[in-house]
Amino acid sequence: MMLGAIEAGGTKFVLAAGTSPDVITARQTIPTRDPATTLAQAAAWFAGQGQFTAIGIGSFGPIELDRRSSRWGFITNTPKPGWADCDIAGYFRARLGVPVGFDTDVNAAALAEYAAAQGEGCSSLAYLTIGTGIGGGLVLGGKPVHGAAHPEMGHIYPRRHPLDRDFAGVCPHHGDCLEGLASGPAIMTRWGASLSEFPQEHPSHAIIADYIAQACHTLFAAVAAERIVIGGGVAKTGGLVERIRARTAELGANYLPGSACHHIRTPHHGDNAGIIGAMTLANAALSSQAL
Amino acid sequence: MMLGAIEAGGTKFVLAAGTSPDVITARQTIPTRDPATTLAQAAAWFAGQGQFTAIGIGSFGPIELDRRSSRWGFITNTPKPGWADCDIAGYFRARLGVPVGFDTDVNAAALAEYAAAQGEGCSSLAYLTIGTGIGGGLVLGGKPVHGAAHPEMGHIYPRRHPLDRDFAGVCPHHGDCLEGLASGPAIMTRWGASLSEFPQEHPSHAIIADYIAQACHTLFAAVAAERIVIGGGVAKTGGLVERIRARTAELGANYLPGSACHHIRTPHHGDNAGIIGAMTLANAALSSQAL
Repeated sequence: MMLGAIEAGGTKFVLAAGTSPDVITARQTIPTRDPATTLAQAAAWFAGQGQFTAIGIGSFGPIELDRRSSRWGFITNTPKPGWADCDIAGYFRARLGVPVGFDTDVNAAALAEYAAAQGEGCSSLAYLTIGTGIGGGLVLGGKPVHGAAHPEMGHIYPRRHPLDRDFAGVCPHHGDCLEGLASGPAIMTRWGASLSEFPQEHPSHAIIADYIAQACHTLFAAVAAERIVIGGGVAKTGGLVERIRARTAELGANYLPGSACHHIRTPHHGDNAGIIGAMTLANAALSSQAL
Repeated sequence: MMLGAIEAGGTKFVLAAGTSPDVITARQTIPTRDPATTLAQAAAWFAGQGQFTAIGIGSFGPIELDRRSSRWGFITNTPKPGWADCDIAGYFRARLGVPVGFDTDVNAAALAEYAAAQGEGCSSLAYLTIGTGIGGGLVLGGKPVHGAAHPEMGHIYPRRHPLDRDFAGVCPHHGDCLEGLASGPAIMTRWGASLSEFPQEHPSHAIIADYIAQACHTLFAAVAAERIVIGGGVAKTGGLVERIRARTAELGANYLPGSACHHIRTPHHGDNAGIIGAMTLANAALSSQAL
């Protein structure tokens, strides 16, 4: 068996091949250009690796996940030039002649982290990425959550921090939603540098931790998530996850039932959560138990 | 087949008997007193109805839903005098000798509304009740969501409305969380009357609609819910659901994928959603596919 995986991001595609989600034997990264160029380059790389059994794709969004839709497997109305209405799953199914698993990049990452948490009896997990944008995936009882499309956790509205009242936020749609306030570009716009360039006393650390902690509290309260895994570039800032954890506990005020089971972690798989999750999607595409 | 159902609330217990969730043949309401009195009175009513096949209980919380726990079926650490550590499911299983289905009152209501929405292809539904307290249930793919216990949607923090900056909120744990700001008691404390006693121009209508709309936006963004059903006494205020719908659309700014599938409704089953959902829990307790 040979599984292929694609983590399709706005700036790069990560490609991988292996025999299971745990065993990646080859990988490649290519820049994201226009769809025709990028997809052909990815397909050529896979062709050079041998015969595949299935491919999994964790993609930037928004994407179509409704299997009853003729547009299942499409990237839909992204503002990214050229990529709107791109049939990414169909392309690889046609070119490689294999079943294709498909979900958001963050649901894929959540699946990989969920599998890693199984030894600890975890039954629900959210994966938040804090980077160029903010996105979230959610796995409940082993299945990634779909509904009216898929979660877009970056666009909830946190309460404004008292030391951050005036910044308008950078989200073109919502201004000061979570992504508008706490993404890498939001930090850069307001303070002119990334979080890790400031000393711990700089208010930026407490402000960003507060916004992400509000998202964690919301996920604990709204879906009773047992574990929240926080990845992405901004989350690598020294001390940030500890601050998020402490602030989330303050917000919960020890009230939420099961709060002893609420955990906030860094990714078990580090930066590989997305591509390992895409391998999991490939694996699932082979079974009748489609995710 | 005879199914029994209990909607266990903080002020009253609704009891019902019937042959399916759609066919309730007898019902009774009793006041919630201490557990010994209340549970015995409920059991006596069921005994007078004949032989049951299964019982379903939708209960106020917090409750234990983890089937691996020896305390499954308990009301856990409620502040309600006498009710902490009450083995409510075990009581009826022992007294009536039948399988017992058990979940939160709001997950039960969400199940009933979910079933009613099946004809419209709805795959995910949240049920919010806005009354003495604020609670929420969530059904995804036919299953009520559990995790670290169960959702406690009343305790997310909405952004403060500009016309409502000074009110401290009435939640004993969180002050100005959603329940602290938008529940019946919060309205009464701040304005001295219930929402329906004020004309539509009174700022209370826009303020409360805004807080509940923020919760709706959060649910759409965090779990991609297709439908949100809003029940409870406060939600019956004339014009409120329309205002919530309009404000939620503003907050979403037409950005969330699948937003054409986002619907905010009043309960199909009106005040009967909870007891019908408890019948559904009874039904499910008979199958191996436990909810």
